[in-house]
Amino acid sequence: MIPRYSRPAMAAIWEPANKFRIWFLIEAHACDALADLGVIPKEAAAAVWEAGDKPYTAERIARIDAIEAEVKHDVIAFLTELADHVGEPARFVHQGMTSSDVLDTCLAVQLTQAADLLLEDLDAVLAALKRRALEHRMTVCMGRSHGIHAEPVTMGLKFASFHAEFERARDRLLAARADVATCAISGAVGTFANIDPAVEVHVAKQLGLTPEPVSTQIIPRDRHAQFFAVLGVIASSVERLATEVRHLQRTEVREAEEYFAPGQKGSSAMPHKRNPVLTENLTGLARIVRGYVVPAMENVALWHERDISHSSVERMIGPDATVTLDFALARLAGVVDKLVVHGETIRANLERMGGLVFSQRVLLALTQAGVSREDAYRLVQRNAMKVWDGEGDLLSLLKTDAEVTAALDDATLTGLFDLAHHTRHVDTIFKRVFGAAV
Amino acid sequence: MIPRYSRPAMAAIWEPANKFRIWFLIEAHACDALADLGVIPKEAAAAVWEAGDKPYTAERIARIDAIEAEVKHDVIAFLTELADHVGEPARFVHQGMTSSDVLDTCLAVQLTQAADLLLEDLDAVLAALKRRALEHRMTVCMGRSHGIHAEPVTMGLKFASFHAEFERARDRLLAARADVATCAISGAVGTFANIDPAVEVHVAKQLGLTPEPVSTQIIPRDRHAQFFAVLGVIASSVERLATEVRHLQRTEVREAEEYFAPGQKGSSAMPHKRNPVLTENLTGLARIVRGYVVPAMENVALWHERDISHSSVERMIGPDATVTLDFALARLAGVVDKLVVHGETIRANLERMGGLVFSQRVLLALTQAGVSREDAYRLVQRNAMKVWDGEGDLLSLLKTDAEVTAALDDATLTGLFDLAHHTRHVDTIFKRVFGAAV
Amino acid sequence: MIPRYSRPAMAAIWEPANKFRIWFLIEAHACDALADLGVIPKEAAAAVWEAGDKPYTAERIARIDAIEAEVKHDVIAFLTELADHVGEPARFVHQGMTSSDVLDTCLAVQLTQAADLLLEDLDAVLAALKRRALEHRMTVCMGRSHGIHAEPVTMGLKFASFHAEFERARDRLLAARADVATCAISGAVGTFANIDPAVEVHVAKQLGLTPEPVSTQIIPRDRHAQFFAVLGVIASSVERLATEVRHLQRTEVREAEEYFAPGQKGSSAMPHKRNPVLTENLTGLARIVRGYVVPAMENVALWHERDISHSSVERMIGPDATVTLDFALARLAGVVDKLVVHGETIRANLERMGGLVFSQRVLLALTQAGVSREDAYRLVQRNAMKVWDGEGDLLSLLKTDAEVTAALDDATLTGLFDLAHHTRHVDTIFKRVFGAAV
Amino acid sequence: MIPRYSRPAMAAIWEPANKFRIWFLIEAHACDALADLGVIPKEAAAAVWEAGDKPYTAERIARIDAIEAEVKHDVIAFLTELADHVGEPARFVHQGMTSSDVLDTCLAVQLTQAADLLLEDLDAVLAALKRRALEHRMTVCMGRSHGIHAEPVTMGLKFASFHAEFERARDRLLAARADVATCAISGAVGTFANIDPAVEVHVAKQLGLTPEPVSTQIIPRDRHAQFFAVLGVIASSVERLATEVRHLQRTEVREAEEYFAPGQKGSSAMPHKRNPVLTENLTGLARIVRGYVVPAMENVALWHERDISHSSVERMIGPDATVTLDFALARLAGVVDKLVVHGETIRANLERMGGLVFSQRVLLALTQAGVSREDAYRLVQRNAMKVWDGEGDLLSLLKTDAEVTAALDDATLTGLFDLAHHTRHVDTIFKRVFGAAV
Repeated sequence: MIPRYSRPAMAAIWEPANKFRIWFLIEAHACDALADLGVIPKEAAAAVWEAGDKPYTAERIARIDAIEAEVKHDVIAFLTELADHVGEPARFVHQGMTSSDVLDTCLAVQLTQAADLLLEDLDAVLAALKRRALEHRMTVCMGRSHGIHAEPVTMGLKFASFHAEFERARDRLLAARADVATCAISGAVGTFANIDPAVEVHVAKQLGLTPEPVSTQIIPRDRHAQFFAVLGVIASSVERLATEVRHLQRTEVREAEEYFAPGQKGSSAMPHKRNPVLTENLTGLARIVRGYVVPAMENVALWHERDISHSSVERMIGPDATVTLDFALARLAGVVDKLVVHGETIRANLERMGGLVFSQRVLLALTQAGVSREDAYRLVQRNAMKVWDGEGDLLSLLKTDAEVTAALDDATLTGLFDLAHHTRHVDTIFKRVFGAAV
Repeated sequence: MIPRYSRPAMAAIWEPANKFRIWFLIEAHACDALADLGVIPKEAAAAVWEAGDKPYTAERIARIDAIEAEVKHDVIAFLTELADHVGEPARFVHQGMTSSDVLDTCLAVQLTQAADLLLEDLDAVLAALKRRALEHRMTVCMGRSHGIHAEPVTMGLKFASFHAEFERARDRLLAARADVATCAISGAVGTFANIDPAVEVHVAKQLGLTPEPVSTQIIPRDRHAQFFAVLGVIASSVERLATEVRHLQRTEVREAEEYFAPGQKGSSAMPHKRNPVLTENLTGLARIVRGYVVPAMENVALWHERDISHSSVERMIGPDATVTLDFALARLAGVVDKLVVHGETIRANLERMGGLVFSQRVLLALTQAGVSREDAYRLVQRNAMKVWDGEGDLLSLLKTDAEVTAALDDATLTGLFDLAHHTRHVDTIFKRVFGAAV
Repeated sequence: MIPRYSRPAMAAIWEPANKFRIWFLIEAHACDALADLGVIPKEAAAAVWEAGDKPYTAERIARIDAIEAEVKHDVIAFLTELADHVGEPARFVHQGMTSSDVLDTCLAVQLTQAADLLLEDLDAVLAALKRRALEHRMTVCMGRSHGIHAEPVTMGLKFASFHAEFERARDRLLAARADVATCAISGAVGTFANIDPAVEVHVAKQLGLTPEPVSTQIIPRDRHAQFFAVLGVIASSVERLATEVRHLQRTEVREAEEYFAPGQKGSSAMPHKRNPVLTENLTGLARIVRGYVVPAMENVALWHERDISHSSVERMIGPDATVTLDFALARLAGVVDKLVVHGETIRANLERMGGLVFSQRVLLALTQAGVSREDAYRLVQRNAMKVWDGEGDLLSLLKTDAEVTAALDDATLTGLFDLAHHTRHVDTIFKRVFGAAV
Repeated sequence: MIPRYSRPAMAAIWEPANKFRIWFLIEAHACDALADLGVIPKEAAAAVWEAGDKPYTAERIARIDAIEAEVKHDVIAFLTELADHVGEPARFVHQGMTSSDVLDTCLAVQLTQAADLLLEDLDAVLAALKRRALEHRMTVCMGRSHGIHAEPVTMGLKFASFHAEFERARDRLLAARADVATCAISGAVGTFANIDPAVEVHVAKQLGLTPEPVSTQIIPRDRHAQFFAVLGVIASSVERLATEVRHLQRTEVREAEEYFAPGQKGSSAMPHKRNPVLTENLTGLARIVRGYVVPAMENVALWHERDISHSSVERMIGPDATVTLDFALARLAGVVDKLVVHGETIRANLERMGGLVFSQRVLLALTQAGVSREDAYRLVQRNAMKVWDGEGDLLSLLKTDAEVTAALDDATLTGLFDLAHHTRHVDTIFKRVFGAAV
């Protein structure tokens, strides 16, 4: 997480002010439940809310840090500072709880906050993709496999394909959000030895979480591993879209380009450059987010009821993964939204390969006309290879190949070289992706 | 995937006989749909089933391999061999389809077959965990955080914790199975240019898959990335359970042991050894399965409508990840099922630390009695540190500490040192995990 | 490691016949040293060599496997089978040694054997790169940054860049080979309690290894982690070269192509296709080899003097990583060797962008002529952007820009558009890479 | 890189003030070389040094940031700010260079600075390990394989083993430092088209780097991949040592403990706790550093002469990996230095298992006395298993086993149970690690 790749709302989730605020809410809600159970005085719970329900200012945070430097324990430092405000009833705070009750439940809240921002980001990406898909539904362009011209598709289909992928991303993130949205207020080893399970139920409800079925001082880390794994998968989808744009912007292809602002400089040395730097950047950010997946998985196998080795990992990848992916998704939405599509180059590229892209249709027509598949393949390939070698366009060559014309007459051959044939089912696919309405 | 860590049923999924059989089913079902559409003769479809609906023997596979060595294309080799059996109507097979329609749909079938075996494996792990959890529901043992004695738990709670974790594993795998269970019969770039979408719908239905909303010659690889990521998370849960057993079997702990068969040798050099080799092995296998996660994610960003770089990765990690995890889960179920629990050592370890594990309860009692939290902590800690240094047991020391006895009398202190206090909520937790019935 | 991506010599290193042969050599050399020390009879050592110095046939291997199935310990099984041949003196074999003395020293031998094959592979890649570099030393082609035309380079420089990179790969592999080439014959916890250090020194020397300074039953795994990390870096270099070829073969670029054999089929559906399938395959194989790096690193932190969790990892990644990289390097050498370079397309691409590639040189000439850098940038960029938009070639546009011509006259401008300017230092670079001789 | 896990000197390397200072030095040294070549006036080079050779204050950095926000190009922003100070001769700065000449050479300097700090850190770890190794050279303690008691070692041997490992770490880091210590001043695509190679040679020499043989606008990223891979291996060695301490501090083992400061609190809930939190923390930090390895490897395969996808990765992992490892190594040195070793517990643990640890020596003595290896194993194992089951100590049991006493008399048996036997070669090992002097 570096400022260059951070957006304020996501970064704020990981700042001390938010963290301590969540800690306070956990403790205060727990006090309410404890008071209801008669474990602590109702007045104590009320005093906690009254004195403590206020923001954590820079001054308060500095005070907590100072205490922590001395006692070397963050939750104790937090509680000590809170006691300054609450006074005598503070001794009822944190009754029967252990630090991890606060830390892990807080992390659950932070991750759900982060997930909510990421879901908004995905919605923005989806909205941009849908708009561009509908805009270019019938913009016929070359489809490529292996980087080699294959058969025509449409720009709209490209956008639709990514839309479907990011809808899956959304579904996965929603599931991952649910996976981490649990609350543990279960004490030192999760037995509720010194705290009633009702406290956990109350705090969970207040914070929009569900109670963790079995915690062991901590919430089990398979939940977090799954969460960060899903971020890694989403980042990989970001990379796929970024890679598509980078390819389309290559000088020789140039079917689309990232928006290039007036006054922007592409290169300090070469004034002619317009580089796809945003999508190259996204490619790198995807690598970073993926890099956090395995450490999160290594965090699962903690020792016995818990060890704390996961903590340093999460202090880093919690912010880093969510902030970086948030930035990447926001950038991606902008790239899609403002992508410049070059219709003329698209058409020029389509026509560039001398009709090679119709080779399969000729193959099929030959087999329908009674030629064996093997012979048909041979006939089409031998003419196609001549096109690659610059000896003419495919249709003309086929018309002069006696073995071909023995099976298909001129008019039939000409009829096969028809772009419209390839877009007949675009609406079917759009309905699958966007529903019947579009 | 090496024989040492393979089980036959899972390995068979990845063998040529199964692969070619699935290919045949895809082609034959597609012929039915094509015949219904009038694209090919009904007799042709019937001929395909009649001549081709039989196992792929070693002989047939060798023939396909021989053809592939020549044409350097696996699907063409497959179709050529099929044509030997089907004869003339074979030219109607694969009409309008592309190789990936077969390959990707086949992979979907193989991954769902693999997922089904893994789900069975998880069920076996869950059954063993449940049985052992109920058996040891009230076997009180030491809970440890940071490897240090904390407070008592029960062996049953340990098993219950893993049961809850492997239920999550099951849910995640079910979702991941659905993610990869799609069918694509959409042609060279996914436009259905030469094949009606109805064929895809028919084949999908026959094979228990859903049609891929947008394929681009291939099924998008974010689906597979998610699948392998989930296997990585499950492997990490395997590692957690394996690590727990390894710790419990340590010479100094020895609360549980892997079953050691009569006649087994633990070490070629040291005849006295009984090592937790199964769970050490599982720890290593978890690393291996995790190692496949990032390559699967790197497979997502293919170029344009597809490139084939994912293929070599999947040829290796498809079998390797599923076979290894299948072996690991089966081994794990056995370890849990046969785990030897040493009740006496468990009790001895509980009593070993001079009552230190009751420190929190004393702390809370002091605060309830009006001592400030900070003072209470100080009082308990100073006596606890003496216990660490071998100067006596905690209860005796507390009874001689005037500041403590000023707040709590002897009987009260004695009453705090009660194991039963720690197991009051075991049933609550068991109900969360296993439901009301247990 | 699957047959499709295996070559016989590397695969043989990991087969039982080679493994057991190395085990025998370790035991037999150890017997010699033990006999020299007077620990065992000289006749016993002689008997071991006489009866045991022969290949491990399939029959012998099956016998060992059968014993292992019973005793569940591979080294004991091996020793038992050896005893069948050696007879009574067999009881002197393995005196004071532990299984890991055999296993770890064997792995060291296998990894050095593998490294030697990989070094040969690298030499073949280097030879092909050097030949093509010299062949195309002055084949001027477009250099591209960000996928966008930048300034001219030569095809020879591309090859030279990879040559320098693979020379670094060779250096790293040599260092990594030395890192794993150690021998441990130090007993159950590495103290030489029951075996003299002189045995280790003797065996190490006979096998071309160095004695491990401190072993702890096992050779420390940081050595192996470093080895597999280096394989991952080399695989990444393979991917860079593969990616270059894939880009050059794109339909729109088509400056080079993988060799396409007569009779080869690019696509079952589209007879016109010639796809860069070898380099796409290499891209995937690189992902696989990288996937083994982190598991190898996770193997380092074993418990106390050793645990065996590394073993299952190494049984898989030992063969998989070396076999896959061996296959990849051999394939890569072939791709480079037979790469088809399309001179005409290269020249056409160079001329395609209307002289944009000379923009920096104009910029520098303007600053040399007294224009500020900022103004010069602005002047060149505004003309370059017109070229992008299809409004003419850069030289013509500059000649009509009054601000430009105020600083540079027509002849000077024309002189700047000179390809030879960009190749003046090619020889300097070639000398750095290939030495003075070329 | 978060403040919690950062040390100032390493963090400063990555701060703008250091980065811009290096950029200035590169540009100013390049001006000297350009002036020597007569490309720019000597006065211009002198003016650059005179006006620019001063620190980058917060004010200057803010000014650069403001310019960058406008022109969206960091090097141009830097040059523009520099021009403010240098005035008219500033137009001669950066002549013929491209941004990457500055950025990549700067990164090389930063990584060598970072490597130098890490080498110092390693020296501190090595010094602590050596001191403790010599201190505990003959502190006999239990050696454990698989977490199970094996045979005696000494605490000194443990430290010596880590010393040897961190010496390898040092060697690897030195080699990795050399790998990244190259300078590229070669222009837009590395052809020196607009700048003489002599400039690169001069700047390299001034900055302690070597010229990059072939750069392609950028320095090839296999160098950086190797560097970060080595950091990952070192982090794994940190984890091994951390894991050893965590195991030794387990309540049941308690042979050593992290230093626990007076006033420190181990747990907010359980006042008795003294947890190995530093080494648990190091375990987590190791995961983090390893997580950066694969992204660094993914950075290698850039497109053609370069793309910029590596940049965002390096902006994050450059600081994060070096700062985190620096912090970890410093913490590790402290842990080793202050580790509390509990001699009494060590001795108690040694005696705990009823002499089982001498089982191998009895086995060997039996074979020396003419018993077959298989019989000897059986005899020892059947007595050892009784010890595990609490039926007595090994020596007493052996003395009552007729088959044993038939081969070995009482005195011989007693003589085998001798700890000194296991430490005879400690000096040999120490000489291998620390040289003849110790």
